[in-house]
Amino acid sequence: MKSYHLDPGRGLAGLTVQEHAEPEPGRGQVVVRVRANALGFRDLMVLADNYPLPIRPGVVPGCEGVGEVVAVGEGVGRVKPGDRVAATVFPYWLDGPFRRDNAAQLGTMIDGMLTEYAVLSENGVVPIPEHLSYEEAAAFPLAAVTAWNALAGGGAPRPGETVLTLGSGAVSLFVLRFAKLAGARVIVTTSSAAKAARLRELGADEVIDYRENPEWSDRVRDLTGGVGADRVVDATGPLEQSLKSVAPSGEVAFVGYWLSGAEGAKAIDPGILFGAGAVLRRVATGSRAHFLELNRAVTTHRLRPVIDRVFPFEKVPDAFGYVESGGGFGKVIISHD
Amino acid sequence: MKSYHLDPGRGLAGLTVQEHAEPEPGRGQVVVRVRANALGFRDLMVLADNYPLPIRPGVVPGCEGVGEVVAVGEGVGRVKPGDRVAATVFPYWLDGPFRRDNAAQLGTMIDGMLTEYAVLSENGVVPIPEHLSYEEAAAFPLAAVTAWNALAGGGAPRPGETVLTLGSGAVSLFVLRFAKLAGARVIVTTSSAAKAARLRELGADEVIDYRENPEWSDRVRDLTGGVGADRVVDATGPLEQSLKSVAPSGEVAFVGYWLSGAEGAKAIDPGILFGAGAVLRRVATGSRAHFLELNRAVTTHRLRPVIDRVFPFEKVPDAFGYVESGGGFGKVIISHD
Amino acid sequence: MKSYHLDPGRGLAGLTVQEHAEPEPGRGQVVVRVRANALGFRDLMVLADNYPLPIRPGVVPGCEGVGEVVAVGEGVGRVKPGDRVAATVFPYWLDGPFRRDNAAQLGTMIDGMLTEYAVLSENGVVPIPEHLSYEEAAAFPLAAVTAWNALAGGGAPRPGETVLTLGSGAVSLFVLRFAKLAGARVIVTTSSAAKAARLRELGADEVIDYRENPEWSDRVRDLTGGVGADRVVDATGPLEQSLKSVAPSGEVAFVGYWLSGAEGAKAIDPGILFGAGAVLRRVATGSRAHFLELNRAVTTHRLRPVIDRVFPFEKVPDAFGYVESGGGFGKVIISHD
Amino acid sequence: MKSYHLDPGRGLAGLTVQEHAEPEPGRGQVVVRVRANALGFRDLMVLADNYPLPIRPGVVPGCEGVGEVVAVGEGVGRVKPGDRVAATVFPYWLDGPFRRDNAAQLGTMIDGMLTEYAVLSENGVVPIPEHLSYEEAAAFPLAAVTAWNALAGGGAPRPGETVLTLGSGAVSLFVLRFAKLAGARVIVTTSSAAKAARLRELGADEVIDYRENPEWSDRVRDLTGGVGADRVVDATGPLEQSLKSVAPSGEVAFVGYWLSGAEGAKAIDPGILFGAGAVLRRVATGSRAHFLELNRAVTTHRLRPVIDRVFPFEKVPDAFGYVESGGGFGKVIISHD
Repeated sequence: MKSYHLDPGRGLAGLTVQEHAEPEPGRGQVVVRVRANALGFRDLMVLADNYPLPIRPGVVPGCEGVGEVVAVGEGVGRVKPGDRVAATVFPYWLDGPFRRDNAAQLGTMIDGMLTEYAVLSENGVVPIPEHLSYEEAAAFPLAAVTAWNALAGGGAPRPGETVLTLGSGAVSLFVLRFAKLAGARVIVTTSSAAKAARLRELGADEVIDYRENPEWSDRVRDLTGGVGADRVVDATGPLEQSLKSVAPSGEVAFVGYWLSGAEGAKAIDPGILFGAGAVLRRVATGSRAHFLELNRAVTTHRLRPVIDRVFPFEKVPDAFGYVESGGGFGKVIISHD
Repeated sequence: MKSYHLDPGRGLAGLTVQEHAEPEPGRGQVVVRVRANALGFRDLMVLADNYPLPIRPGVVPGCEGVGEVVAVGEGVGRVKPGDRVAATVFPYWLDGPFRRDNAAQLGTMIDGMLTEYAVLSENGVVPIPEHLSYEEAAAFPLAAVTAWNALAGGGAPRPGETVLTLGSGAVSLFVLRFAKLAGARVIVTTSSAAKAARLRELGADEVIDYRENPEWSDRVRDLTGGVGADRVVDATGPLEQSLKSVAPSGEVAFVGYWLSGAEGAKAIDPGILFGAGAVLRRVATGSRAHFLELNRAVTTHRLRPVIDRVFPFEKVPDAFGYVESGGGFGKVIISHD
Repeated sequence: MKSYHLDPGRGLAGLTVQEHAEPEPGRGQVVVRVRANALGFRDLMVLADNYPLPIRPGVVPGCEGVGEVVAVGEGVGRVKPGDRVAATVFPYWLDGPFRRDNAAQLGTMIDGMLTEYAVLSENGVVPIPEHLSYEEAAAFPLAAVTAWNALAGGGAPRPGETVLTLGSGAVSLFVLRFAKLAGARVIVTTSSAAKAARLRELGADEVIDYRENPEWSDRVRDLTGGVGADRVVDATGPLEQSLKSVAPSGEVAFVGYWLSGAEGAKAIDPGILFGAGAVLRRVATGSRAHFLELNRAVTTHRLRPVIDRVFPFEKVPDAFGYVESGGGFGKVIISHD
Repeated sequence: MKSYHLDPGRGLAGLTVQEHAEPEPGRGQVVVRVRANALGFRDLMVLADNYPLPIRPGVVPGCEGVGEVVAVGEGVGRVKPGDRVAATVFPYWLDGPFRRDNAAQLGTMIDGMLTEYAVLSENGVVPIPEHLSYEEAAAFPLAAVTAWNALAGGGAPRPGETVLTLGSGAVSLFVLRFAKLAGARVIVTTSSAAKAARLRELGADEVIDYRENPEWSDRVRDLTGGVGADRVVDATGPLEQSLKSVAPSGEVAFVGYWLSGAEGAKAIDPGILFGAGAVLRRVATGSRAHFLELNRAVTTHRLRPVIDRVFPFEKVPDAFGYVESGGGFGKVIISHD
């Protein structure tokens, strides 16, 4: 069986394919035949070695993967061969708050999912909702779990709350859709009329063009009777406009993928931070419990992800290139079929 | 101007109408010309003096009323003449948890809303959503605030959670509708096919006939893969089936209107209480903050209440009689027009 | 190596000792040489088979045990040979709320700690605070974790809150001491002047003799200016006086060991439950995270448990007999030395 | 009776004394004969008009004052003449989260407490703990309420948690002392051996000299086994070292008095903010409910504030000068006796 491996810091040039024997599960472990993956900006950061965690040379990259359980080790009780499962990005973060000793992520120090067969803990996989194909299910482990944690990890929004999310990246699209499920009024920022139209189709109540309105927090204030948005999920940075958009005692959940970029890394004025009168919460993906919760919501509402393009497993480098070029609208998927 | 007054313990026979001068607002107060009221089982308990609070002889009954601000006292900043407002049932419970010194309720020790003009604190009124008529708005102050607190007062449900609510009383109907706004899957119990049909129209995902299934918690378990409902709102009692229906670490919110009745007052088996593995939370209406939150949800989703019948202000005794007879489906409203 | 085994429902008569080979750890597992255990009322319920969970015939009983790690399996990273550890009663409940699939307890369906060597998951053990001997550490896994969850699992008490705890059982003694660490004012009930004196030595601010005051909730009201106790931990039952003692919006955490007894099983008046105006939370031990939290508090304050008597491992039946007789004041410990 | 008045932006030069008639209470109001005040850095910001709120020309400055109720208006039920009370800094923020319409503060748009008689809402005063003199009680309304909110407003610390607080300003001293009441381990930073000694006397477990250790977050990491402090209260700024000191999923509560200063206003690196993995919560004083909670803790533990110097009412300008010069250790008090 084949796996991709990376040489940290060399980007796509450091990506190689190696042949391995099919793995056997140890006690408490399962072997998953991978059927689909997703790729994103986070993976490019890992390849470039500018992700804020150490990367083990030779590690299998890719934190998003789904497939079929083909073998289980001794003592495994949660899954059985034939089950369709998704790997959780943080295999040791099962429930409760993020803790230092649960910090290992797939595809950094431990092997990830860009492989034909993966050995995982039985606690490191969750069932896939029945109505989803493998390609669709692969869109969830990183972006959807991050969106869920950002939106509901500090307590779910109440119907009628205003949620602001920025741009049309994969996390934002899931925030938009989960927020609509929760009965929120959703404001999204974008820079193109075409994307604005698609965001409205997905349920956005208001779309703000941030190019036309560089001080777009003024628009958010206008749209909320001066109060501001109850919750902001900022996955694009810089935080300044988000902090100016949030209501007193509201929350800005911020996802840090943008930190490697130039604009996002702009320093934050502490006066604006104070003036926001809100809580600022850092979000880094989420736990197994978050994933199970969102799966329940996705199942109840038969939600399907927005998929941009599907590449075959042999074309992972092309897929990375497509992500690097800025991609389109929705997730970039790898199919093993 | 006219007001109803009651003689505690005499029921409808103790209800009289008296003539008064139009009131003047003191500092911080507003005068509201009442335009509509709602009546319910709680009011009957007050008339019968079997409500769990002392009732002042001669008090103006009725805790639900809405109208137009016609005068404001010195220092009033939150409302102005012409505003359409609803009175809050607990005029001193503004925000935060229920506390002993905020316990006064309209229509028990302090005058209520079955009057043509009411003097209220500016903090004891909230704006009425624009899309609602006075008759519609009158349906909210007691049942909807109770439902909101029961559902969201201990933290809002997450999309995909299962919410169980019992029967088709006014509180339950609001729980059903608010839970649907929140993206929950909603199970409702009822005893009639006609009501089941109406509950489904309002969004119920599952309706259980509790006559056919006296041990209907088994049905709830079946419908939830054995886990139980994440939240139960029990406004009918007895609690036993609710406790058997709730998921571990779930919540049973219970509203006590049923306690004056025979069946509801059935003692609770502490073994069932323990076995539930859940939190049991007593709910008694809610705060001004709860009311403002639900108004926002109602406004966002342009929700309209289910109204059963409308009686004129002169026919309050008839309306009480109708409530006592069991009523229909939805709120019983008094119109002053 | 020797282990005790039980025959459910036969009580002490069903307890046997069997000889086994020393176990080997599988992947993710550790072998612990047990050095001390604790026994309590819960174990008697298990022997008598009136515990609210199925008991596997032949299971090793005893949910409380501590010892030294003597071997670790593949992939174990959290502990190493030589570490002093305590087994967690719920080996799969690591963090977050209690969930159905984490419900397995030591000494019911899976083997417990009344053995010379135990095989446990590396996640099923926590380090022992340095200042504690094995005999002292054995007092913590059940009673202290339960007390911690009861007191802090729904949010820690604030300094100045009033905490009421009932009697001088092992859980209550830990509640008393943890509540004092948290700056609370603590009221304890008891029935003897001798116990009252010891409770005061441990920090109780007020001790109420429940024999002299059968309606002792009146005393709690007197001692709290009429408001009631902010939190009640009820590990003795029946709940009625606790419900009458709690402040509005307060919490009654209840531990169910008493449910097998006659008095405790007295039915609960729903009117009293409603009138309490509080939250009632069922507590069943706690998670690994609760254990780690309390260990930190125990370490910071160098707290030592109250130990009643120590029996050698060979005298487990005598120790059970002593527990059954009502015991004394503090935990009953088994030493393997 | 005499009141101080200010001319915003002119600092001490703009401070004048005016003579007024003794005020009368309106409905719901009380008249308080002021007996003591406290002054601090916030008041200097107001005088200089660099506080982040508009200041009404001619307003009575001073947000901290205590005294005796000498008259009550119609409908007042919470206090009576003769009661010893403290004014709350936010007279409309009674309970629950901070909201925009409760934002008015004493001494900015509405008259403050540097006066001989003040007219206040009955909801805008809280009782003074019995064991405190007026001079002592005056130390609480701003600094202690801020400290309480910073420490317990997002949930009380659990015994054994590590709390880090910065410097020996009035807020930090209260954080230190409240955290000790809560059973926390407390680390404080300072720059002088003399202050370090006094901080240890007040209970500090660890004192770090931030002059000797400019990267003092390293010391915090060393003192916490690498994990970081569970909570940080930063009332001095800049936030960088606080963010580097906090544990994953911990909280940095930040108080913004330092924002007018040069060093404090240093921009924040978003990478450090993200890397902290914590919640950042802005704290601006607290609610009436916070004040009542802390009073209960202060009463239970008979805590007395640290007072630096007491000035007579006639010498308010001198007292302001003393505060401006950097003051000493503890609160600067104004006595009316």
